[in-house]
Amino acid sequence: MAELFKALTVEEARAVLTRYLPTKKTVTKVPLLESLGRLLAVDVRAAEDVPGFDRSTMDGFAVRAKDTYGASESLPAYADISGEVLMGHMPQGKVGAGRAWRISTGGMLPSGADAVVMVEFTEELDKKSILITKAVAPGENVVRKGEDIAAGEIALPAYHRIRPQDLGMLSSIGVTEVDIILPIRVGIISTGDELVAPFESPAPGQVRDINSYTLFGAVAACGGVPQYHGIVRDNHEELRNVLEKVIADNDMVLLSGGSSVGARDVASEVIDSMGEPGVLFHGISIKPGKPTIGAMVGDKPVFGLPGHPASAMVVFDLLVAPLIRSGEYSVLEKDIYMDYPLQAEIVRNLHSAAGREDFIRVRLFLREGRLCADPVLGKSGLIATMVKADGLAYIPAGKEGVEAGEIVRVKPF
Amino acid sequence: MAELFKALTVEEARAVLTRYLPTKKTVTKVPLLESLGRLLAVDVRAAEDVPGFDRSTMDGFAVRAKDTYGASESLPAYADISGEVLMGHMPQGKVGAGRAWRISTGGMLPSGADAVVMVEFTEELDKKSILITKAVAPGENVVRKGEDIAAGEIALPAYHRIRPQDLGMLSSIGVTEVDIILPIRVGIISTGDELVAPFESPAPGQVRDINSYTLFGAVAACGGVPQYHGIVRDNHEELRNVLEKVIADNDMVLLSGGSSVGARDVASEVIDSMGEPGVLFHGISIKPGKPTIGAMVGDKPVFGLPGHPASAMVVFDLLVAPLIRSGEYSVLEKDIYMDYPLQAEIVRNLHSAAGREDFIRVRLFLREGRLCADPVLGKSGLIATMVKADGLAYIPAGKEGVEAGEIVRVKPF
Repeated sequence: MAELFKALTVEEARAVLTRYLPTKKTVTKVPLLESLGRLLAVDVRAAEDVPGFDRSTMDGFAVRAKDTYGASESLPAYADISGEVLMGHMPQGKVGAGRAWRISTGGMLPSGADAVVMVEFTEELDKKSILITKAVAPGENVVRKGEDIAAGEIALPAYHRIRPQDLGMLSSIGVTEVDIILPIRVGIISTGDELVAPFESPAPGQVRDINSYTLFGAVAACGGVPQYHGIVRDNHEELRNVLEKVIADNDMVLLSGGSSVGARDVASEVIDSMGEPGVLFHGISIKPGKPTIGAMVGDKPVFGLPGHPASAMVVFDLLVAPLIRSGEYSVLEKDIYMDYPLQAEIVRNLHSAAGREDFIRVRLFLREGRLCADPVLGKSGLIATMVKADGLAYIPAGKEGVEAGEIVRVKPF
Repeated sequence: MAELFKALTVEEARAVLTRYLPTKKTVTKVPLLESLGRLLAVDVRAAEDVPGFDRSTMDGFAVRAKDTYGASESLPAYADISGEVLMGHMPQGKVGAGRAWRISTGGMLPSGADAVVMVEFTEELDKKSILITKAVAPGENVVRKGEDIAAGEIALPAYHRIRPQDLGMLSSIGVTEVDIILPIRVGIISTGDELVAPFESPAPGQVRDINSYTLFGAVAACGGVPQYHGIVRDNHEELRNVLEKVIADNDMVLLSGGSSVGARDVASEVIDSMGEPGVLFHGISIKPGKPTIGAMVGDKPVFGLPGHPASAMVVFDLLVAPLIRSGEYSVLEKDIYMDYPLQAEIVRNLHSAAGREDFIRVRLFLREGRLCADPVLGKSGLIATMVKADGLAYIPAGKEGVEAGEIVRVKPF
């Protein structure tokens, strides 16, 4: 075992993991529309200017800006209509002095023109001439060639997670296939002699497996590919056999249930026997979630998550989710502040031990326009407490609790 | 046309839509693990108590609480070890006065016992007896039968969106197939004579379609099923033919590009001719996003979104996304405050017209622990402005702008 087993802080646990995590990535190509939510494997550069020409952002008239200088409602400028821009076509001809071409939003600016007067600020005298009632500056109501993105610029950087607007950007530069980082495959095992599958009827003393299902959802929700490997008995040999296969088939493994320091806790010993460096820590100073095992078997992270459903989800969120999201295990040092972005007024006093980070399940509601957080009471063994909650409130290690009315940081589910 | 075409507020636009929206829903059954992110079609009730028995939340000894009263380190209570609870089995026997049974986390409480003493507060004298150094109250370290959820209780209500923890709850009550509301199919059309597909090389005057791709991603991101129907020319007949098919094949249709009040704006006339009640509004008092068409063709919403990519996404977010998310079009009246949950310090002065709601693309960053929002400069026709932004800041209609240092509400992407 590589480390002493004192309870680490979240920051220390992240640091230990980061030290051992690999920086490999597996790249694959997917069609543009399938790349949503995936991580870019490489910088994507624009091969050409977007747009490829100066473009009107308004319906109106393309003009030489200087011909409009001083124009107002009381003293409009006069212009001859000498052409019309057809959408999708290059205008044939040039806008001369005192001339105006009809143009629609998105039309290509004809040569000679350097601005567009909005139709609202023109008055058609007849089919051949207009009055302009407001001056325009050069470039006004025009998107310049390459203004959206210029040839050679990085449109999106490697490791960027592709959002809807990014699909639009990629489309605009003609990218129809995207190199993405292959999502992390996460094997999920529940351990416990008392567990049965959801389709089974539990006998007295038995309960249905909860954690495999919450973890399956949590892995999928942060962009991983969950693989459910079933329930394993609290037995060295059985766990060893299953774990060997699951480690081989996945990039990461989540065990839950076997991490209590109880009589039947075999997870730590088995994980540690699977390969170097083995178990890195056993216990983190948070509530809920203390009895957590963090390990590396070769280049694969293996976590022993607490058996209590709420605890398992809190630990998942703190240590596992960032790994799955990052693609290259690169964001473990991320500021927790950004992970708990809401500010809410806590409505009850809460106790917390100094030196321990607390994660409180809360209901969120509005009172007179202020966001309030009401702690959900109940043990961390109850999945109902997570179901009733809208998010987690964070109490830093330095605090010994919060008083009703204090502002806390909250992460919404 | 059913309404006068003055620009509506967002609230008015939502109210008009709500008046015409259908309340139908189509229900389908999916396996538990495929239900993540979907909306429940019906209330799901627990058929039995979870857990089905009193259960230990700790490793330790099951006892009668009253036998421990007054126990302390200096004056421990003595107990005989008279049994051991095997995980997953019903204990055979009863815990009598002055007796203790070994029990692990999750074990079934033996009859007679009403509490668990944590192993940390016991000292084994020999294999047969322990000293208890801390008193426990009845129910301490025990989850009661039905405490997670009781038989007959609603585990999750209809219209609830299934989160990871909800999969665990459903598993715990033995639900292996879930009745979900079929996600809304959204047909997407881009209109414009200047548009080409991403795999095409734009000639001078042409640009590649952006909005179909951002909208495809946006629909998928809020749980709808996007269908891409290609680019249609700005031509009454062609648009009419395509729209007829797309309306028939989908539950909702998004057009983009044809909603400017320009020369080639045919979208409004064609949509209005497709069926009653037709166009409900044309124009909303927001920036960006003013030239928006909202319509119902029979029971199907049809939107004409602005052609500018940033505008189209803002309108999508305000009017379309809530419909797709809600399943029964029920959340349009949702408080915008909850949609813009972050509080950030704006770092520049921004002007806004009174009576108009403004949505400002912003970059988010931390400065001395405070969340700050820096407006992304650039026209709403530039997709790059959305790509560079981390979210949208909201300026309500009543304000004529914000000053640097003011706190604004932000929705992160």
